[in-house]
Order: sequence, then C-alpha cells, then structure tokens
Amino acid sequence: MYSFKNDYSEGAHPSILKALMETNMEQEDGYGEDKYCEKAIKLLKGKLECDDVDIHMFCGGTQTNLTSISAFLRPHEAVISANTGHVLVHETGAIEATGHKVISMLVDDGKLKPKHIKMALDEHNDEHMVKPKMVYISNPTEIGTIYKKQELKDLSDFCNKNEIILYMDGARLGSALCSKENDIEISDLPKLTDAFYIGGTKNGALMGEALVLCNDSLKEDFRYHIKQKGGLLAKGRVIGIQFLELFKDDIYFELAKHANGMAEMLKIGITNCGHKFLIDSYTNQIFPIIPNKIIEKLEEKYSFIVWQKIDEGNSAIRLVTSWATRDDMVKAFIEDLGLLERI
Amino acid sequence: MYSFKNDYSEGAHPSILKALMETNMEQEDGYGEDKYCEKAIKLLKGKLECDDVDIHMFCGGTQTNLTSISAFLRPHEAVISANTGHVLVHETGAIEATGHKVISMLVDDGKLKPKHIKMALDEHNDEHMVKPKMVYISNPTEIGTIYKKQELKDLSDFCNKNEIILYMDGARLGSALCSKENDIEISDLPKLTDAFYIGGTKNGALMGEALVLCNDSLKEDFRYHIKQKGGLLAKGRVIGIQFLELFKDDIYFELAKHANGMAEMLKIGITNCGHKFLIDSYTNQIFPIIPNKIIEKLEEKYSFIVWQKIDEGNSAIRLVTSWATRDDMVKAFIEDLGLLERI
Amino acid sequence: MYSFKNDYSEGAHPSILKALMETNMEQEDGYGEDKYCEKAIKLLKGKLECDDVDIHMFCGGTQTNLTSISAFLRPHEAVISANTGHVLVHETGAIEATGHKVISMLVDDGKLKPKHIKMALDEHNDEHMVKPKMVYISNPTEIGTIYKKQELKDLSDFCNKNEIILYMDGARLGSALCSKENDIEISDLPKLTDAFYIGGTKNGALMGEALVLCNDSLKEDFRYHIKQKGGLLAKGRVIGIQFLELFKDDIYFELAKHANGMAEMLKIGITNCGHKFLIDSYTNQIFPIIPNKIIEKLEEKYSFIVWQKIDEGNSAIRLVTSWATRDDMVKAFIEDLGLLERI
Amino acid sequence: MYSFKNDYSEGAHPSILKALMETNMEQEDGYGEDKYCEKAIKLLKGKLECDDVDIHMFCGGTQTNLTSISAFLRPHEAVISANTGHVLVHETGAIEATGHKVISMLVDDGKLKPKHIKMALDEHNDEHMVKPKMVYISNPTEIGTIYKKQELKDLSDFCNKNEIILYMDGARLGSALCSKENDIEISDLPKLTDAFYIGGTKNGALMGEALVLCNDSLKEDFRYHIKQKGGLLAKGRVIGIQFLELFKDDIYFELAKHANGMAEMLKIGITNCGHKFLIDSYTNQIFPIIPNKIIEKLEEKYSFIVWQKIDEGNSAIRLVTSWATRDDMVKAFIEDLGLLERI
Repeated sequence: MYSFKNDYSEGAHPSILKALMETNMEQEDGYGEDKYCEKAIKLLKGKLECDDVDIHMFCGGTQTNLTSISAFLRPHEAVISANTGHVLVHETGAIEATGHKVISMLVDDGKLKPKHIKMALDEHNDEHMVKPKMVYISNPTEIGTIYKKQELKDLSDFCNKNEIILYMDGARLGSALCSKENDIEISDLPKLTDAFYIGGTKNGALMGEALVLCNDSLKEDFRYHIKQKGGLLAKGRVIGIQFLELFKDDIYFELAKHANGMAEMLKIGITNCGHKFLIDSYTNQIFPIIPNKIIEKLEEKYSFIVWQKIDEGNSAIRLVTSWATRDDMVKAFIEDLGLLERI
Repeated sequence: MYSFKNDYSEGAHPSILKALMETNMEQEDGYGEDKYCEKAIKLLKGKLECDDVDIHMFCGGTQTNLTSISAFLRPHEAVISANTGHVLVHETGAIEATGHKVISMLVDDGKLKPKHIKMALDEHNDEHMVKPKMVYISNPTEIGTIYKKQELKDLSDFCNKNEIILYMDGARLGSALCSKENDIEISDLPKLTDAFYIGGTKNGALMGEALVLCNDSLKEDFRYHIKQKGGLLAKGRVIGIQFLELFKDDIYFELAKHANGMAEMLKIGITNCGHKFLIDSYTNQIFPIIPNKIIEKLEEKYSFIVWQKIDEGNSAIRLVTSWATRDDMVKAFIEDLGLLERI
Repeated sequence: MYSFKNDYSEGAHPSILKALMETNMEQEDGYGEDKYCEKAIKLLKGKLECDDVDIHMFCGGTQTNLTSISAFLRPHEAVISANTGHVLVHETGAIEATGHKVISMLVDDGKLKPKHIKMALDEHNDEHMVKPKMVYISNPTEIGTIYKKQELKDLSDFCNKNEIILYMDGARLGSALCSKENDIEISDLPKLTDAFYIGGTKNGALMGEALVLCNDSLKEDFRYHIKQKGGLLAKGRVIGIQFLELFKDDIYFELAKHANGMAEMLKIGITNCGHKFLIDSYTNQIFPIIPNKIIEKLEEKYSFIVWQKIDEGNSAIRLVTSWATRDDMVKAFIEDLGLLERI
Repeated sequence: MYSFKNDYSEGAHPSILKALMETNMEQEDGYGEDKYCEKAIKLLKGKLECDDVDIHMFCGGTQTNLTSISAFLRPHEAVISANTGHVLVHETGAIEATGHKVISMLVDDGKLKPKHIKMALDEHNDEHMVKPKMVYISNPTEIGTIYKKQELKDLSDFCNKNEIILYMDGARLGSALCSKENDIEISDLPKLTDAFYIGGTKNGALMGEALVLCNDSLKEDFRYHIKQKGGLLAKGRVIGIQFLELFKDDIYFELAKHANGMAEMLKIGITNCGHKFLIDSYTNQIFPIIPNKIIEKLEEKYSFIVWQKIDEGNSAIRLVTSWATRDDMVKAFIEDLGLLERI
C-alpha cells in the first residue's frame, strides 16, 4: 500500500536528522532562546530580505493560527475566511475557542478577493454584529490553487486601506512558491502581508512552522501568547535546527519542487488516461475525477482521500505528493490506472 | 560554562535519534494514529498494569495541562493548586485563558493535602463563587519534594469522596518514581489518580508527554480537545517512537535514576562543604543555600537559577540535574565550591 | 413620527409598573431568591402543566442565549443555527466569545428541519471538526415564520434520537403562540424541547426572559453560570414581579394577540393597496415589498427598517407591531400608503 | 424580621418609579440610544465636570466589571486585586471566564497601595507568567473602608508611570463619596482613574450602573463589548431614566448620606453597648464583634450576615444600611442589643 493521502506520512529530510544528531549533546537555553533558533531566524530574515520582522517557531499549523489570531484581535473582532478555509472547517473550532468568530465567505476557487472582503464589511455595520478585522488566506489554498502576485497585491491594498490585518497560512508555502504558475517571491511576503508562516511540517521537517510578524503593531509581547497557548517548546532548538537545515542550502525549495513535480507527473499521466480534474491546481495536491469502480480498485494498492461525489458513477479524489514521494510509485500509479481503464 | 539550569538543555537520548532515523522513510498515518503510537500506548499500558486507560501523546506540559483541565471542567468549575503550582504561576494564565480559575492554597512543602482541599471546599459554598472540582498536583512538586504513597492515597480517597478530579502533572515523574524516598509504583497511578501524565521532555525525549486518562468519565471525545487546542501533532509518530524507545527497555527509569544520582552527588558534596538546603528534596532538583559572594564566583563557570533571597548575605540557588548531566562536571562543581569556601 | 421599528419602543404594561410600586418598600432576598420570583416560577409551571422543570429569570435574550449555550456544551461542541438565526448574526459573536462555533445552515423560511441537522451531522464526522451537539431555533423565527406542532415534533424526535440538545429562543414566543396559524400550546414545549425561554422584553415587560430547563441533565449548577456571565440581577424581584403580572391573568397572551392583530390589520391594508410580501408571516413582523419612492415618503411620518433590496425600484421593509401599537396609527399608516399609491 | 443583610432589599426610590410611569408610553429607540440615556449622560458629565468621557449604562456590577476588564486587556494581561476584591472572590470566576487571571495581593484594610502593585510587577517579570496590566479597586472596599484622596492620587500616579490601567468599582460609590471621612469629589475621578462606575443598584435604583471611560484608549468600539457580553438592554431607557432621576436633584448623594447616617447611628449604639468592631469603617457597612449567644437572639428579629469567627465565643457580623433603612428599626436594633446585654 503506497500513500498519496498527505504530505506528512514520512519522517524528515535526512539532513535534518543528521543535524539533530550532531548537535544533540550541546547544552542550549530552552524555549526558543537557543543559538539554533537565533541562527535560523537570521537566515530566514536574509531570505525574506527584511530585517524588520519578528520570527517565532511553532510545532504545528493549528497552534500557529490560533495563537496568532487570538493575539491579533480584540474580543469583538472577527476573521474572514473562504468557505474552504482551514481555520473555518478543520481546526475543531480552535479559533472560536479563543473567543472569535470566523466569518465564512463563499468563493469558487478557494481564494478570497477584495470583493469578498468588501461584502463582509458591508454586512457587518454596527455593534450588534462582530467587527471584521482580519483576513485569513492560505497559499496554496485548501484546494491547491495559488495566489498570483497581483491578486495578493490587490488584497493587501484593500486590507491596508480598510485597516484589516492580512494573514497568510503557509502550511504548504513551499509548494505555492515553487509552483510553475507562481510569480511571488518569498521576499514579497513581508511587504504584502501583516503576518504569515512558513510551513515546515508539510515540507520535510519533523514538525515546525516559522511565523513571521511583519506589521510592527502585531509584535509586542508575542512570546506571552505562545506560552499561554501551550506552544512554547522547551527544547526549541529542535525547530531552530530544522529550519536552519531546510534553508541554509535552500533544501526547502528543492523539496517543494520535487513534490510539485511528482504531482505534475501524476497530472499528466491521469490526463493521458482521459480523466478530468475538479480544480486546475499546480501545487502538490491534485483532484482528478475518476469512475468509482476504478477508485475501488486503486484503493487496493494506494491510499488517498475520496474528496467529493461528482455524480452517481464518478468521484473526485485527492492525491497529495510530498518531498518524499517516490517517482517509481507515481509511475506505478499511472500504469495501474491505465490498466484499469482498459478492463 | 556548564549548565545546571534545567533538565532540557540537551537533545534526546541517542537511542531515540537512532530510532527516528531507522523508521524515517516509512509511511505512517498522521495525528497519532500511526503504529508507533499504537505500540507505545500498548507498552505503557503494560507498565501501568492496566488496560482500561486511554493514552494520548502531547508535545509539552503546558499544552497537556491546559487541554486536560479545559476538557475536564464545566465553565463554573475551578482547579485547586498549591501556591507553588506550575499551572498557577508559570503558564502565563493558560488555564484562565480556557476560562477557569486556579484556586491557590498556601502549603509549606509544595504538597496539597486533604486539609487544603477541605478548606477550599468550605470557602467556596455558593454560586457567587467558583465551584472547586479538580485538584492539580505535580509529582515531584515544583520544589522537588515527592508524594509518599500514603499521602497520595489519602488525597485520592478525599477527592473520590467529594467527587473531585485528581490530576497529577508528571513533567518529572521519572525523577519522583526513582527517588530513593519514593514508595509509589507507576502501576499505582491509574488507581490513585483520575488522570496523570508521564513526562518525556524533561527525561530524555526531544519532546513528548503521555497523558493517561484513568477515569472513564474523562475519556469521551478527548481527541477533539487536543485538536482544538492545537496539540495534535501531524507527525504523531515522532512522539510515539520516543516513548517506545524510552520504555521498551526501561531506559526511562535509568535516565531518571542517573539524574537523581547526580543530584545526590551534588547534595553530598555541598553538605560536606557545610551548606544547608532550603528544602530537603530527593529528586533531580536541589536548593542549597550559599553565600552570595560564592554564588557570584560559581556563576562564572556554571549556570543555574538564584531561587530565593534568604538574608542579606545568602541565597538559595536551584541546581537541576538530568539524564545528560556529566559526573565530571558535578565533581568539578563540588571541587570549585570547596575551593571557594577556603578563600 | 410613529415607530414600527421594533417591539421594545415603549415601557411596560401599566399593571407591571403598578405592581412594582405596590411592592416597592417590601424587603426581599436578592439574586432571584425572593418570593415574587418563587411565585412567578410556580405560576409558570402551572401554565406549562409541568412541575419537573427549572426556571431562571434573565434580563435579556442575548444574555439568556449565551449563558445557556455556554452551560450546556463542552468546549468542542457546537450549536447549529439557521443562517438567519439571532445567535449566528446579531449577537456580536456572543456565543463564540464563550468558545463555541455556531454552524450556519442555509434555510429558506427561517426554519431548521431534520434534514438540515442531518446534513450538519454528516459533514462533521471526525475530531478535526467541531461536534454538533445542540440545535438553536427561535419561534417565531427572525423573519416572523412559526413552527407548526408537527414540524417541532419531527425536529424534537430527530434531536432525541441523535442526542442533540434542542433549544428554543422565545424572545417573541407570545406572538408565535398567539398566531392564528399556530397549533402549539405553551404546555407542549417542555415535552418538545430540552430548554426554551419565554420572552418578556418584547411582549410588555420592562425587561425579562424566563428560561425553562426541561431536560434534567441541563439543570445542575445552573445559577453558577448565570452569576458567572453577569446575569444574576441583585434585585431579581423586578423580573419576578413582571412575570407574575404578565401571567397571573394571562395578560401575556392578550398582549401578544394585540400585537398580532395590529400586524394583520397592516397586512390586510397593505394587501388591499396591491402590495406583495417577502415572506408570508402571521406574527407581529411583516415584510411588505414597497416601491422605494413610497418608502421615502412613508419615512417622513413613520420609522421602520428597510430590510432588503428586491430590485432597482422596490424594497422589502420590516414593520413590527407590539402590545403597545395603537390602532389609530395602523389605520393612519394604511391610509397614508393608500394616498401615496394614488399619486 | 427586619433585614440589615444588604443594600438591595427594597425596590427603588419612589421618584424613579414615578418617572418610569410618566414616560412609559413614549416611543424611544432601543439599546441605550434613547433620549433619557442621552440626557442622563449629559447630566453625569456635568457632575463629573468633564465632557471628555464616554458613559455606558449597565444592569449590574459583575456585568460591568467583566465587560470592562475583557475589553481593556489583551489575552496575556492580568488584573491585580486586593485579596478581598469582588472580582477575585465573589463573581464566580467571571473574569477568568473571559480569559484573564486575577492576581491576588494580600492587604490588611481592603486597599491596594503602590507597594502592592510594585510587588506584583516585580514578581511577574517574563513571558512564563501573565503580565499585570490593570489594577482593580473598589471604593468603598468590600470591607467598608474608603480611599483618601492622597491614597488614590498615589495609586493613580504609580499606575500612570507603569502604564497600568486603574479601574474603580463603584458599586457603593455614593456611600464612599458621602462618608464623613471622604475627601474625594466625584469630579476628581475622571482625573484619577482610567475608568470607574457609578453604582445605582445599591443606592436606590431598581438596577443600573453607569460606567465612565476616562482614558481615550479604552473608548473605541466599547458598545460592541457590551452587546457581546449580553449587557445591552433593549429598553435602555429604563436605566437612563433612573440615573436622570438620581442625579437631577442630587438624590443620589442624599440617599447615600441617609445610608451612612443609619450605619453611624448603629455604630454609636453598638459602641455604647460596649462592643468593638472588626474594621473601622465609615460607610454603610459596619462589622461589630458580638457574643455568639447574643447573635443568636438578634437573628430572631433581624437578618444579617455572620461575617467571621473571632474566637470561641464571639463573631463579627456585617450590618448593611441603605437608602431605605428605617431609623425606627435602627433604634429598635440598638434597644434590643442593649436589652440582650443585660440578660
């Protein structure tokens, strides 16, 4: 059984484990105040071409999102999300548990645009309703689409003008930035967002997300919030070392390119077999529409998620590739799909 | 500079890193549903001699405490803690952030006893005050003392009779169970507490705490709470593998014994130098009272925390040993202390 | 300027003020433990033909809703609401501020039906999403429609079978129960819901809502929750006296009948002028569709809310009548509308 | 049975009920946007000799406290209270339920002084602990003592210098300001505090507290918070009318003087009977120490709270007087006490 279920099925890139081993017996300060976190942060600031940001290390995406949103907003303020947004649907009410409403806006491609924000602002116009104060986007989105630079710029301008905080969930940021459709540089992000995070867990780390606070007004006392929400890892070095490894020779981008490449190989193969896709994505998630009978057969050898019913006979499935996806297994999948077609 | 500041200065026991490497490229399910978590849980149940518990893996102690307390209590219910308790003082209001008051009871040795619980219950007697519903203890306590079996039994009986949940924070549980003063077996804990956790971070893991839910009424839907509070690690295997390594050959206890042994060596040496201690502890934390002038000199070569002012000329310092503490450095510390005395 | 904006524009029914005056200098216990609350509760239990309920007095609807929902649910549990629901839209995130998600279900007539609950349950099927545990309905709904007995019974049966709490917001319960389309008795409610409240503020009281807890599992420690959320009025007598007055001679129902009657008079008059309605409601809220030009003229003499744009030339307005609405003003409104038509 | 249990046993000052009646059938806007609230706010600003404050009406003290503290603080910030403080002990964890820790400081006379605040600041010095950001005092305190102007000034200066918000709970503010020991004017309060409230419930209103926001940084969006916490009364006029009545001819102060006078009469009478007091208070609460045998007898005719055990034979009781306390009953109490002495 080979898994295309997600991008966190394997452990970590071997160079990370090697670095953990080599530094293992050094004594370091706790709670992210060690020299590896310090070095990793310095390195990331270089990649971002921006010294004027604060960077904090987290263990996971939900932790990063809930800590940020809770720290950024006053009690009556709410965050706007696309109807597919992770914070809206797949975090067990983590944001609401910190007291804030997530306002859902219906979009067709996973992407929030200024018109959606305007609509939310227009609808929430007095103190009997929450006050929309923050926009949550992820890049890529939950359905694998990415923001083009102009789209992000338009959103950023609209948010600035309306004093709305723009936050980007980058759980799969590597995949977005390495997509062949992408025209955004990582160094654009401090200019275009108020805060964003660089996801490690889904791109080769054991665990780890690096939150980047760009807007000065969001920086104060931030470590208090991480501690309060349980996210301040005693051995913070473990995350620092990982980001150091991922970025010192730009492995981070290589791993993402590999993942995207494997997805594209799948896409071409599946297209050649005559199948269409639910969404036209260029990242490490693809959503082919496959006859149910063939899905059943594929499930005998591969694991993946059946994403959505299309009609009586067909469903969209989600295939996720990663830094660790083996190209022989991608080829095997395509071959098996081809054989099943002919039956 | 050698550190006696805490027990999380180094990385992990080497066998853990080895196991992470050996299993690295295997594909596993996410969020703690992998086979290593499964095996670790089975192994722990064996050690606990109890199959009727639920075990969940966490990344850190504050995360474990806040998720548990928030899951166990209704909104108007509060948790009772000793005035030195970690949840009361050192978690940045993490418990209050989930909506619950922590009631502080003044104790002299870090340990809550039935009389303290009774006092809290007597004082909170109507709906204008919170309802005490849970007792938080840690073993060892924040100041290194441990519960004797009879003390724990008395507390357990009192809590049972009054329908109070008894929860034990085991961040340093290994050190307590391996103390030469200890008479509690790890297999006693499911009988004597409603929930407790086995701390890995401070006893040789990169990170990881294993929460054990003993009381059936606390088990339902628990994974929802972990997810909501941001504690469900995508690559849960990382914690599962660590607990497997720590317990399969009882390394966990060996490491704790080493830490305690190093503390005792320090204690004997410091006593021989003629110093007294703030508290008579038998775990991996000791609190000698040292003249300030000598403390200043020691700080040139060793790092540790100055815990408490005793009088104008003397302070108690905290020395913490760990699984990784080197005995040559312990000897060096004692020797240096002896030399400083003679000046 | 005469107002059809809402049903809380005037003070209280005169008999209430009279009773407040007559009892004014009596000494009573505080916090709802006075004899008037006691009498009012006894009286209400009689009307409900059910002794096995707990009744608590509140000052307002949002307070009642947030206290109930927060007391009923565990942290990971969520409440299902129609997309028009008051708790979803018009309480400034009061429910989320207590930590709970409100799940929105799109309905066409303001009413949740079993199929909507089923859909919510089907969509929320693992611990990465909140757990739907409660259904919030209001009767009448936000758009003036009411539940028929069979509809409520079906919903109640479905909730029971699925261990879902059914809660009815009765801010305008009098208007629903006195609607000519209604076939529910107030004494049906303890059998068909787990909790509901009888709204006083919008039916002749200065302020006051009586929360009825029907399901035993929701009753324990409830006064703690009222106090914690700031809803325990020191002079609880003020609400007790009002409910006593409203129910001792069934004034409550008379006032609601008057309000409904005034709405019907408006409806007939407006229909006769040739206008249609957005929704076919039989309570004290009606939503006629009027040409914008006429709306502008009406606004010179009457205040009301422009509810929704219909097309370029027409909008739906909301007219609300109450226990205090004067029939001469209703007639005047119709007359003015008729005159404006002819221009 | 005559009650000295509290100052909210009776209804409201008759002129309030009269005003409610006279204005009853006028149509007013809801939610505190009526002309009576507007007039009352203007009147209060005049009394405060300060136009640059925002004033909001609430139904009760706990509601006012929890809404304010929750609105003022960020999640990691905490409020400092005396160990006797109402928010610490007697609000069922209302503050913690909004996510904030209340830090308790041990004081001997109910009053926080700069040294206590300094101690709290010194103890909370990094991100592993909450950040003290607000000081909660009440005037008079829970035990009937009052702040002298210089004490309040010192506290205010210390808070300003340390960027701490100073908040005064004025549930019994009238009694403090009319105490014969008082040297504070109501118009001093906007200069000396960041926010405070003028309590109506305990000084002749049916219910009602007027929150005064003095510091500009606390004013923004405040109505959102009132609504979210359930405190925005639909018929806000009811509170506006009451404050208008209480302040238009300074009845508020007359009522407080009466209450204080009755307490002093009791004090003199009890002193003459040879009894001492637990605390030397000059407001409407006194705490005489009485032999238990006599207390038992008194309880046959008077209700009051037994406050604290003094020794085997004696207890302190709390006697509270109010705007409605009858002097014949005060005399009767003293006479009865005198008679009981002689037995």
